[in-house]
Amino acid sequence: MSKAEVTLLDCWVSPFCMRVKIALEEKGVAYESQAEDLFGGKSELLLTSNPHGKVPVLLHNEKPVSESAIIVAYIDETWTASSFLPPCAYGRAQARFWADYIDKKVFDAGKGICLGKGEEVEVAKKDFIEVIKTLEKTLGDKDFFGGDTFGFVDIIGIAMTSWFPAYEKYGSFKLEDDCPKFSAWIKRSSERESVAKVIPEAEKVLGFMAMFRKMMGVEE
Amino acid sequence: MSKAEVTLLDCWVSPFCMRVKIALEEKGVAYESQAEDLFGGKSELLLTSNPHGKVPVLLHNEKPVSESAIIVAYIDETWTASSFLPPCAYGRAQARFWADYIDKKVFDAGKGICLGKGEEVEVAKKDFIEVIKTLEKTLGDKDFFGGDTFGFVDIIGIAMTSWFPAYEKYGSFKLEDDCPKFSAWIKRSSERESVAKVIPEAEKVLGFMAMFRKMMGVEE
Repeated sequence: MSKAEVTLLDCWVSPFCMRVKIALEEKGVAYESQAEDLFGGKSELLLTSNPHGKVPVLLHNEKPVSESAIIVAYIDETWTASSFLPPCAYGRAQARFWADYIDKKVFDAGKGICLGKGEEVEVAKKDFIEVIKTLEKTLGDKDFFGGDTFGFVDIIGIAMTSWFPAYEKYGSFKLEDDCPKFSAWIKRSSERESVAKVIPEAEKVLGFMAMFRKMMGVEE
Repeated sequence: MSKAEVTLLDCWVSPFCMRVKIALEEKGVAYESQAEDLFGGKSELLLTSNPHGKVPVLLHNEKPVSESAIIVAYIDETWTASSFLPPCAYGRAQARFWADYIDKKVFDAGKGICLGKGEEVEVAKKDFIEVIKTLEKTLGDKDFFGGDTFGFVDIIGIAMTSWFPAYEKYGSFKLEDDCPKFSAWIKRSSERESVAKVIPEAEKVLGFMAMFRKMMGVEE
């Protein structure tokens, strides 16, 4: 397969783009990343490919797929060597539920920590820790959300943790104190080649967040 | 299969519950509806079955599945007689995208029309019509979003239209004027047995919305 067959409209700091890249790495699919400048104006290709006008968009033989969790499912169903999802319908429904739970809860709570003011930060931090505790309970004593294997929920979730150093910094907390098992899952998952290759260094994410907070008027 | 095998934690006016009931009807699955009193306090079963504490929850042999689009996919993968989704991965990704688009856009815009005040109503109405126009473009000249057959996006979407009479009333517009093809799709889909059986009469929905507006302090 030539590289040009798979192109990702990408942004290095987006956890949603990271999910797609981790999924492609897991499947051993070669791809070309095409960086979008989200503050300087979006490309015509992005705007015409996704009705939401957002990254990530995966172009497979020029045909666009949007929404990160849908792209990860598409990758799973297109390159079928090993599946991200369990073989039974109930297991798949559970995996989709927790991926959706992460989508509905983690990013918004984290945004509240990084961009909130005064009491808002405390409320968002409390929400965030509750959400991670719920996820930790689901993880239980398993190595991965997928059980013994790194699967759909692991891919969806681990990408979100790339911003956790910023949440810990601006929320003044250590997630490990409240959620030791979840923190061990982050460490375990981050050691995978696919994840280590994709997740940027914490310092780079912290630098972006400091800049973004200035842009949003949260700090001088 | 005994009726008790499939139970739905249900609310008659919820479009999200309607989706699940239409999917069950389409597959010919017998089920028991267990009504939840959303204003009078939720059942222990609902609260323990769904981390979000929301209807619908499908209990299949007592095992819970939550989130309406995930339940519809579960029903599709469990009762496999005929599939709601296309056979190719790309078609499935597109169907999932449009189902997700409906989820992210239609309900919120409609809520703005019914519960907004003054200028908010006009903004929400404009949003709503834009969203439906985007969906109409995707529908094109096809009978259904699934092409010749009533499929996943049709099920997800048609349930939402049960509230459209309220949007038209409080937004003072007729959707047919702006979106004739989408309106024809509503009519065509509403004639299906599965849909006709599930969608409540417009008068009943309008009665609920009048009561809800009073409850929310939008009208005296």
